[in-house]
Order: sequence, then structure tokens, then C-alpha cells
Amino acid sequence: MFEIAEIGNKLSKEIYDQEEPKIRHSILEAQEELREAKIPCIIIVSGNEGAGKGDLVKLLNQWMDARAIATYALTPPTDEEHERPRFWRFWRILPPKGKIGIFFGSWYTNPIVDRVFKKIDSAALDLELKRIREFESMLVNEGVLVLKFWFHLSKKEQKKRLQELEKNPKTAWKVTKLHWDYFKKYDKFRKISEHSLRETNLPDSPWIIIEAVDNRYKTITFTKTITEALQKRVEAWKRQKKEKEPPLALKAPELNVMASLDMTQKLSEKEYNKKLPDLQAKLNELTTDLYQKNRAMVLVFEGSDAAGKGGAIRRVVHSIDARTYKIAQIAAPTSEEAAQPYLWRFWRHLPRLGSLVIFDRSWYGRVLVERVEGFCAVADWKRAYEEINNFEEQLADFGMIVMKFWLTITKEEQLARFTARENTPYKRYKITEEDWRNREKWDAYTAAVCDMVEKTSTENSAWTLVESNDKYFARVKVLQTICDRLTKELH
Amino acid sequence: MFEIAEIGNKLSKEIYDQEEPKIRHSILEAQEELREAKIPCIIIVSGNEGAGKGDLVKLLNQWMDARAIATYALTPPTDEEHERPRFWRFWRILPPKGKIGIFFGSWYTNPIVDRVFKKIDSAALDLELKRIREFESMLVNEGVLVLKFWFHLSKKEQKKRLQELEKNPKTAWKVTKLHWDYFKKYDKFRKISEHSLRETNLPDSPWIIIEAVDNRYKTITFTKTITEALQKRVEAWKRQKKEKEPPLALKAPELNVMASLDMTQKLSEKEYNKKLPDLQAKLNELTTDLYQKNRAMVLVFEGSDAAGKGGAIRRVVHSIDARTYKIAQIAAPTSEEAAQPYLWRFWRHLPRLGSLVIFDRSWYGRVLVERVEGFCAVADWKRAYEEINNFEEQLADFGMIVMKFWLTITKEEQLARFTARENTPYKRYKITEEDWRNREKWDAYTAAVCDMVEKTSTENSAWTLVESNDKYFARVKVLQTICDRLTKELH
Repeated sequence: MFEIAEIGNKLSKEIYDQEEPKIRHSILEAQEELREAKIPCIIIVSGNEGAGKGDLVKLLNQWMDARAIATYALTPPTDEEHERPRFWRFWRILPPKGKIGIFFGSWYTNPIVDRVFKKIDSAALDLELKRIREFESMLVNEGVLVLKFWFHLSKKEQKKRLQELEKNPKTAWKVTKLHWDYFKKYDKFRKISEHSLRETNLPDSPWIIIEAVDNRYKTITFTKTITEALQKRVEAWKRQKKEKEPPLALKAPELNVMASLDMTQKLSEKEYNKKLPDLQAKLNELTTDLYQKNRAMVLVFEGSDAAGKGGAIRRVVHSIDARTYKIAQIAAPTSEEAAQPYLWRFWRHLPRLGSLVIFDRSWYGRVLVERVEGFCAVADWKRAYEEINNFEEQLADFGMIVMKFWLTITKEEQLARFTARENTPYKRYKITEEDWRNREKWDAYTAAVCDMVEKTSTENSAWTLVESNDKYFARVKVLQTICDRLTKELH
Repeated sequence: MFEIAEIGNKLSKEIYDQEEPKIRHSILEAQEELREAKIPCIIIVSGNEGAGKGDLVKLLNQWMDARAIATYALTPPTDEEHERPRFWRFWRILPPKGKIGIFFGSWYTNPIVDRVFKKIDSAALDLELKRIREFESMLVNEGVLVLKFWFHLSKKEQKKRLQELEKNPKTAWKVTKLHWDYFKKYDKFRKISEHSLRETNLPDSPWIIIEAVDNRYKTITFTKTITEALQKRVEAWKRQKKEKEPPLALKAPELNVMASLDMTQKLSEKEYNKKLPDLQAKLNELTTDLYQKNRAMVLVFEGSDAAGKGGAIRRVVHSIDARTYKIAQIAAPTSEEAAQPYLWRFWRHLPRLGSLVIFDRSWYGRVLVERVEGFCAVADWKRAYEEINNFEEQLADFGMIVMKFWLTITKEEQLARFTARENTPYKRYKITEEDWRNREKWDAYTAAVCDMVEKTSTENSAWTLVESNDKYFARVKVLQTICDRLTKELH
């Protein structure tokens, strides 16, 4: 793979002097168009030590409008980052729409270095590379332009570079023992990097390998490639008129997982009043344990309108120490959230170790309301199932406990509750025109829920379907399920 | 002060049973009204160990809608928090409009504990208390309802409580050596707490001291006080119709600091081309030093329209390592920013140690455009000077280097530049109707700038006025000023 960057690419001063002003002009223009088109862009700058990456990044900030660029170095993770799944630290610094993020050291760095120094085995490396593929595919599908550069030096050239830097008193500090330690492993690095690059050479975010010996050559190649990629992306954006697709007519088959539930299950008030406090006391103990054992938990609540999500959540948090949980109420995205990939607004709420977050509605909105109402393109909700599974897998891999509840009621019960709400003055605000409109789409929502359960009930985070015609039964089932899972996880 | 909470307050079971349902109903209703009125609320829960604060907070989450409440314990600061001024960690968790934040342990905790254990002297404590007064006044002025509770136990009662907790196997783990260490210092704690409370007993955020012996009494007093405070605040909001005040006619005196500048200063292209690269090289070295010495810096750029802020910023960052700086472009607030006190959106951009942030426009918008255009109430921009000074003082106290540049041009020069922009196709987007409208208010803006310089040019962060009719002169002056200051700070 790297042979293509060991062939002595060079550029004469004459050609460089011709090219430079042209590129400077067009790269700035392309950046401005990118801003107008509201396309976010990620530029990964990686490759051998001594390849001059720092200078190239500096130059990019000079030629373009630095005010719309943020450059990130891969510093050691902060403790807040340590307490979340590995990609959290990258999610939090994704460039919003119209901006450019330069990643100087990226999600590739640690997996490669860790494998070279045998901190992880090859299976672990391949899992990391799979995660990277998923992450970048998601970014591309969300409209992010991802440009990945690898600046290559042959072994001989790298040695020469490091020696030159060391000789110059002004740059000597840049070369540390670490650089030479890395250099000693050149062959290993090369092999593992090649493998990693090959495994992540995606059609829409391919690697661009640049020979890093000749300064003029690498400068022009780097900046010209970026310019052309920006131009191409903006043009594609102009052509593409993503019309809102009308929502598909949706109907669940007669026999489906929702229809198979026994909706008559109930609990007497007496039983409820006996069981509830016991379960709450138990949950209090278990969450204290969760805190003391430094584990994290995510609870997701979804359900039909008026199925009693709010009431169930209240019973769950009732006896949990308020310092250990947060409730994330998911409503319309804020402007900052709307400028990011879909899952960004959920990543930001992930709990630290020892605590739990309850999502009152969640990322499943994508495959429920957004699908049924046609708020997103068909392609968008179709890919969401896999993205959601990948997301939850990352949480589980990190050791988080993930539980998901779907509270369901029958169509008749919903009507009764809507009517009751309308007739109770202080509950009237809870029922809106929208609720009635959603109700007309009952069948479509049922079909969407069935698909969701089928596609996202996984080993690590299965859906718990909660028959909620009877509120007592539903609440006890939710609490019992959480207690059982926690007991299993913590004891 | 605490005597008032050692008088044996009690509540009979009978009265409690009468009161409880009434309060539960009205506190929930009041919370709903708070949400509708979009008023943010902070509840500080503090006082002696063993006073049952945890249970009261849990109860509050049960009686109210926990989904609109976030409860924070004062855990040790994360390293991201360590690298910013002390209040940063509180700013980042302020409740947005309509929500409630419960602070279990707050900005009071560390100063009091540190003073008791003699980690700080009494002057340092008083400085902290001054900062707290400033912070809370700002919150109140920004419309936040601040409720501060102190749950008091006499020495005898506290001892009894701790012993009771220890005896019960279910609660024994709650009492640690730390609790007894604190108890040994009871008298000291009492004295320093009383002093701190007295010093921060502000008219609009007074302390509410509650005797914490009788459970029924403290529960009812706590929840009733909150209910009434919420109701009162919502009523005040209903009465208050903050009409947009028309902007005042503003004119600077003939003799003013802007008029006193020598606007004819210039630099030849030759001198510029000689000086600029030297200064940039110097700045590169100095910012490397800043990084290595783990200092942080904030640069603020403000100026008349077309004075050349963007160009100056570009020359400044030109040779700085892109990994060490970020540029914060300040435009209209996002929805998340608009739901917070004014300064929130600047606090969030503060640099970590070893790096610098350049503010392209800044918090001075409040006393410039917002004042002149009447975007905020007169009272709001009037208090802003002091708030800004306090803010910058906190940065300086923390060791940050703060520099502020005002780039100024004459009215004639501005006209020339506007016209030139309109006549240059690729610069035309830079000039808008708004620029022409602002120009009509030239005198008002000049007066506002003079006031700003007068009131916010402080010891630690003086304004540098940059005569910018000549761009070469202006850029060199900016760079020279930064280099001089950095040299002084770092060597």
C-alpha cells in the first residue's frame, strides 16, 4: 500500500509558484461555499512522525479562514472522557454544519499504537477497526465530508528527518525519546498501519496517501486534494434536491409481537401497594451498589401516547438517590443539536461511571415518529437500526447496563385515557391535537414498533415490552425487570 | 444567627397530615407554572452533616416532576474543571430556563471547609464570599430564582444524629471518619459558616435557616418555603411587563479617548514586510512557551465595522501551532445559550491550561450593539460593566492572560472601505444593509465605546486601542502588544 508513496514524487519550484496562488484562492472560495451549504467537514492528518504534519496543518489554517476551523490534537483522555465509551471524546468535538474539524491524531491513533506495543491483540484491533468503519459510515451518511490523509516516509527518510530535526537547535525539542522508540518499531508500525488503512478504506471515506519527502509536492497535493474534495461535495449538494418523501403506508401483519401480548394482565391495588415499596427499597440498595461499584446504567423509556411513561419513571426514581441519576427529556433538537449527526444529542447525555441516566423518549424517535410521519428520508431511518445497534453495543462493551422499555396499551384503553384527560381540568394540558392525529396512525405506529423490536432487540439490550393497560401491573413489571437485571449484573 | 434554629421547632403528626397533601398539590402546580414562565431556579441545600439533607432532596424529587430537575452533588473537580477558574464547574451545570437545579453542596462548600481546615486565610475566604455575592447577584438579575437553605443542628443534636446513623446497619456506611473529623471542628464550622452566611445574605437571595431536628417540621418548612417562593416569583413575572425600552440618544463629548488617538499613524509596506515575520516568529516561540508553561490566554477582538478584525486575527494565528488555539466566533446565541445567563456562552469557551482562545467579538456586545440598538433593557447593560469586570478578574486570578483589542477607524475611512467592498465582487458579501444602518449610529457607537473603555479597562486587562486606518500599522501594533505582554508574563 505504501509503495505508492516511495516513488520520489517531487515538484519544481516553478510549478509550485504557479500553483500556490491558484489553490489559495480556490480553497478559500471552496470553504466559503461549504459554509453556505452547511456541510461539516473532518480532515484527518496522520502518518509517520517527522512527516511535517504540524506545518501542513498550520498552513491550512493560514490559507483558509481559521475562524471556521478547529484543530484538535490527541491529548490523553481527561477523566470525564475516561468514564465514557471510547468514541465519546470524538463525538463531543465533531464540527457542526459548515465548519471544519482538523484531527491531528484521531480515532486511528490509539488502536494502531496499542497494537504495535501489544497492548491489544489482533482481534481487538479488528473490532476497533469495525467500530471505525461504522462511525465513518454514519458520518458520511449524515452528510459529513470525511477526508483522511496519511503522510508517508520510508524508514530511511524518517530516520533522516528525525536526525535533521534534532540537529537544528530550534526544533530539537520536538524530537523526544518516544519518537525514537516509535522509530525502532518502524516495520511493525508499517505493517499494522497498512492493515488498518486497508480495513478502513471505505468508498466514501477512502485514504489519501501522500509521499512526505518533498515539501512542495506534499503541500500542493494536500491542499489541492482538499480543494477539489470540497468543490465536489458542494456541487453534489447543489445537484441533490432531497425532497421530503411522503411517508409510506404502513400496516403490521395480523400476527405480530404486539398482538401476541396478554393485555389483560393486572394487579390489584392491594398487591401493588405491597409490592411497590419492596421493589423500590430493593432498587435503592441496588443503585447504591451501582454507585459503589462504579458501574453506569442507561434506561430508555418509549411507549404509546398515554401509556404511562411519566408515571413509571416517577416510580423508578422514587427511592434512588437524586445525586446518582439524571433524566434526559428528549424533545425537539436545539439548534446546536440540529447542526450535528442524529445521535450526537444522545451521546452528550451518557452517564459517568457510578450513575444512571433515564431517557424519557430516545434515539428510537428516528424509527418511530420520524419514520411514520416522514420527518426524515427513507434511507435515513433504514440505516438507523444498525447505527442504533452499534451505538448500544459500544455502551455495553464499555460495561454500561442498557435497558429499554416499550410501554404499550390497546387502542381502546388509549381512547379512554385521552377522554379522561380531556375531562380533568388539570390534566387537560397533557392532551393535544397532535395526540389525536397520532392516534389516527395507530396501525402505522404499531408496524413501526414491531420492526423496531425485531431489529433492535439485541443480546446486550433487549426490549422489555410492558403491557400497560393496567398501570399497577406495568409499574411493577418495570421495577421488577430493573431489579432482576441489576441483581444479575452486580452480584 | 443559628440560635433561631435551636428553639425546638416541631410539628404534630396531625398538622403534618393536613399540610402534606396540600403542599404536594401546590408545589407541582407551581413547578408547572415556573416551566411555562421559563424561569430557571437554583435550590442550594446545605447545613450540618446528619441533618437529613439527602432525604429532603429525594423527597423534593418525588413531590415534583423529577424530569425537570437535575440534582448535583459536589464531587471532586474533574481535570477539565481543574483547568478553569473555580466557577466554571458551576456555570456549566446552571439550569436552563424553566428547569430546576438542586445543588447539594455548592459554591459555598469548599471555601467554608478550606477555611475551617486552614487551607485558606480569612482574607481569601472573604474574597471567595465577594465572588459568591457577585455570582448570585448576576443570577438574580438574569432572572434566576435562587433559594438557599441551611439545615442546622446544635452540637448535641448533631452528635446524636451521627450516632443513630452509625447504630443502624442500613445507614452505618453513610458515616465515615470524615464526618467525625468534621464534628470535632463543630465550633469552628459554626463560626465560619455564620460569617459566610451573613456575608452572603443578599436581599434577593437570602439564606433560609431551618432547624433540622424534627422531621415533620423540616419537611413542611422546606417544601412550603419552596412552593411559596415559586408562586411569588411566577406572580412577579406575570405583573412585570418588561417592555423594550427605546435606545437612548447617545453622543460622546467632543473631547474623548477615541478622538484623542492619532489616526494618521502608518507603516510603509516595506517596514511591514520586515516587521511582521519577525513578530510572528517571536509569537510562535512565545506561544510554545505558553504551552510548555501550562498557562492559558484569552484574546478579545472588538472594533468598528470594517476596521480589520478578521485580518488582524489571521496575522496573529498565522504562526501559532493550530493545536494550541481555538477561535470563538461570536454570533447570535444558539437556543441553548439563550436559555442561560448572558455570560454563559463565553464561559463555555474558556481555554484549558496551555492553550489560548481568540474571541472574534465577545461579551462586550452587551455594552455596544445591545446597548445602542436597545436589544436589552437599560438596567441590563448598566450592570454588565461590573459583571464583565468580575468575570475578567476571575480569569486573571486564575492566572489567565487576558488581552483586549479595540480596532478603530475614522468615519471617512469606513466609508472608503464600505464602498471598496461593494465594488469588489468577491468582497461584496462582507457588506450588508446592517453595516450601513450601524454607520448611521456612528456617534452613538463612539459614545458607547468610550464608556466601555472607561469602565472596563482594568489593571489586569486593559484595552489596547488600535489605530487602524492603516492596516499595516494596526496589525503590527496588535502583534507587538501581544508579544510584549507574553514576554512580561512568561519570562
